[in-house]
Amino acid sequence: MLKLVVADEVRAAVEAGRPVVALESTLIAHGLPRPRNLEVAADLETLLRDRGVTPATIAMIDGAPTIGLDAIELTRIANTPNVAKLSVRDLPVASALGRTGATTVASTSLLAARAGISVFATGGLGGVHRGWADSADESADLVTLAGTPITVVCAGVKSILDVGATLERLETLGVPLLGWRTSTFPGFYLSRTEFVVDWRVDAAADVATVMADARALGLRAAVVVANPVPEADQLDQELHDRVLDEALTQAARRGLRGKAVTPFLLATFHRETAGASLETNIAVVRNNVTVAADIAVAWSAHPTGPDQTSPDQT
Amino acid sequence: MLKLVVADEVRAAVEAGRPVVALESTLIAHGLPRPRNLEVAADLETLLRDRGVTPATIAMIDGAPTIGLDAIELTRIANTPNVAKLSVRDLPVASALGRTGATTVASTSLLAARAGISVFATGGLGGVHRGWADSADESADLVTLAGTPITVVCAGVKSILDVGATLERLETLGVPLLGWRTSTFPGFYLSRTEFVVDWRVDAAADVATVMADARALGLRAAVVVANPVPEADQLDQELHDRVLDEALTQAARRGLRGKAVTPFLLATFHRETAGASLETNIAVVRNNVTVAADIAVAWSAHPTGPDQTSPDQT
Amino acid sequence: MLKLVVADEVRAAVEAGRPVVALESTLIAHGLPRPRNLEVAADLETLLRDRGVTPATIAMIDGAPTIGLDAIELTRIANTPNVAKLSVRDLPVASALGRTGATTVASTSLLAARAGISVFATGGLGGVHRGWADSADESADLVTLAGTPITVVCAGVKSILDVGATLERLETLGVPLLGWRTSTFPGFYLSRTEFVVDWRVDAAADVATVMADARALGLRAAVVVANPVPEADQLDQELHDRVLDEALTQAARRGLRGKAVTPFLLATFHRETAGASLETNIAVVRNNVTVAADIAVAWSAHPTGPDQTSPDQT
Ligand SMILES: [Mn+2]
Ligand SMILES: [Mn+2]
Ligand SMILES: [Mn+2]
Repeated sequence: MLKLVVADEVRAAVEAGRPVVALESTLIAHGLPRPRNLEVAADLETLLRDRGVTPATIAMIDGAPTIGLDAIELTRIANTPNVAKLSVRDLPVASALGRTGATTVASTSLLAARAGISVFATGGLGGVHRGWADSADESADLVTLAGTPITVVCAGVKSILDVGATLERLETLGVPLLGWRTSTFPGFYLSRTEFVVDWRVDAAADVATVMADARALGLRAAVVVANPVPEADQLDQELHDRVLDEALTQAARRGLRGKAVTPFLLATFHRETAGASLETNIAVVRNNVTVAADIAVAWSAHPTGPDQTSPDQT
Repeated sequence: MLKLVVADEVRAAVEAGRPVVALESTLIAHGLPRPRNLEVAADLETLLRDRGVTPATIAMIDGAPTIGLDAIELTRIANTPNVAKLSVRDLPVASALGRTGATTVASTSLLAARAGISVFATGGLGGVHRGWADSADESADLVTLAGTPITVVCAGVKSILDVGATLERLETLGVPLLGWRTSTFPGFYLSRTEFVVDWRVDAAADVATVMADARALGLRAAVVVANPVPEADQLDQELHDRVLDEALTQAARRGLRGKAVTPFLLATFHRETAGASLETNIAVVRNNVTVAADIAVAWSAHPTGPDQTSPDQT
Repeated sequence: MLKLVVADEVRAAVEAGRPVVALESTLIAHGLPRPRNLEVAADLETLLRDRGVTPATIAMIDGAPTIGLDAIELTRIANTPNVAKLSVRDLPVASALGRTGATTVASTSLLAARAGISVFATGGLGGVHRGWADSADESADLVTLAGTPITVVCAGVKSILDVGATLERLETLGVPLLGWRTSTFPGFYLSRTEFVVDWRVDAAADVATVMADARALGLRAAVVVANPVPEADQLDQELHDRVLDEALTQAARRGLRGKAVTPFLLATFHRETAGASLETNIAVVRNNVTVAADIAVAWSAHPTGPDQTSPDQT
């Protein structure tokens, strides 16, 4: 029968109530080019360790949901071409069939919560796709976050998505949204969007209290912390807007629809910004990891934090 | 750590299985003008007490989710300008930050259920907004009701919303809908809409049995009781339709979109009907409170009613 | 108080961990013409018994949710004109009011799961309706499946629905989808659609392991097994496309909207294919029942199968 494989180091930290931050593997497998992806994966773990936080990179390895990849497993996820991308609904199938795959925001959140981890750093959430009223295309991330008690630090959602509709869905689904030292929703590659965030928090201890209070209220939803990339690291606004416009125009001209749109937009976007979007993407994730570390430390110190919480058993 | 603050009177009634009806505070803070709002709030509580039912008006007071406001707290919610409006996802944040705010249908339902209260009277539910296929704007009330075991007495949804789409969502989300002595869905300001309700109930005891059977089936959804305002109290149909049309036309002409639409429609609606829509709004809520009182009494007397039910712990 | 009425034979099989397959009654009451419907209902039960599987046809009988109809109850569901069609949200109301009705995919799934049954054979799932961005019309089947741990064997969804949007919703809602010996999503009357299924399974034992692993992960979602009708039994493709086109054109010409569209499309479809669509419909269901039987047998034999699982109590 399926069992979570939790690395000794992660298990020990969770059991002792020490700070742990989960990391996803889709970024490594699909979000960054080789060999940069493996370097970044190692770097993110180092960023956490330097802050006294245990990293737990998550993936499915030969049918085992693995919380805390070792160096060999990390290398395998980073270097295997076309490794599967597994959302929550794919986990039991990949497990049953003994497959290996990278986990998304949704499945990383779920596995982390099941292992008793309360904080997760990623780049951007999945969301509602442009043209959703035609395609009904909406990432499983949102519904999963509505039912998974974990704090996710992100830089918003990529601008190839329908950002406004994504924010509406988070509201409809009852997912708490905090702006990290901002009242403006960040735009992944850009520090700001036109959208407002209702709640601004400035201290990690406040996020920990939100987490504790959400649990005390019996809420199952995640807490999303929206953390803007520093302005110094953001993509040039004009370049961003021009490339996005071009990509959308070309997709329309080619008559692309449904699942064909997103990969085309991302590929065009990355190509046309040359290396700039890649560097911003890495800055985004590094920045989220450091905020997640602070929150995990605050949660560990919180009077109703991890010591009082058992691993999530549905 | 967050604890529900439950008024002694409410706690005693819940523990003894005596009838209790929850009331929301957004109506008081945002739905009615001062000083009428405080008069109505007091009047609704009196209506309940006269029927042997304990009222429990709910709000967030200085970070404490409070079930059963006292006179000072009620006055504060009624008289503070721009008091926050808190849906479910805002509760843990407002609590963590020590804020005060009014609770919506969603958050009032959740807090009432957590405190062991099974019946809630409001005016109208939130719903799906007109233009939702463009904006994705849908109130968190619907998803919350899909997962919160409480009976909500309302007069439908306001006609500035997409009533048909709201009914479809309630069906999709599996929320039971009962017509109170009607087979026609009511229209908040009007006693009737063009929409049919599949199940008509005529007796409060039947609603109590539906509540008991829903729990026995392990359903988590609320039961929505749609209670038409008496025809004598409804807004003049022609006035309603004309003012609604004008408001929609003006909103389109001004190019309003997303969150800007609803406040504009409501303000126009209220201004153009002079005081008439306010009087109907009050009649709607009073009428719902009396039906909720009957249901709470029937639930209290039901063999599988509150004595057999413990407060909802997720 | 409401209690599930479980036939002795079904209860004994569930308690002993022997294979059981649930069957729905909407097919009998509304999907097939009399007297063919009763013949098919009996035939499906025989198909299961011949494979050593206990059938459990489910309906609401005089307010009692009944798992395993006897001959008299089956006849009543088959022969009563205009018997009610009950989705999940209708169950507590029909129960409270003592009504009789047929259960849909959603309500059959829920009642089966509550009775400890893990496999269910139907024809097609409900789904997202064409024109949903106008009407918001989406079957409650999808949301129910997202929260009900049961394996549903179907032949996809009827082509009068928006098949692509339905697949997107299953993905968004996190419902695992397996292609039974196919990587192409089946089209109910046709063996194939243009849509891909990400996971193909070829052995019933693999489905049983997926079921076990989903439970071990604490997932509440159903597992949908998409099983194409054999090509020999499918409707002629050209006939299918022509009749569907005509039906859609006529519906548009008549200005039909919302709930009026589906019955019109189905009626037109059935009339214009003469008996052919009926014969295919029966072949679809028979074919699903035999696959469900294999899965139930494999689940019964699985090391973490029914012996280790108690009836679903929410
Ligand atoms: Mn998608
Ligand atoms: Mn909204
Ligand atoms: Mn429908």
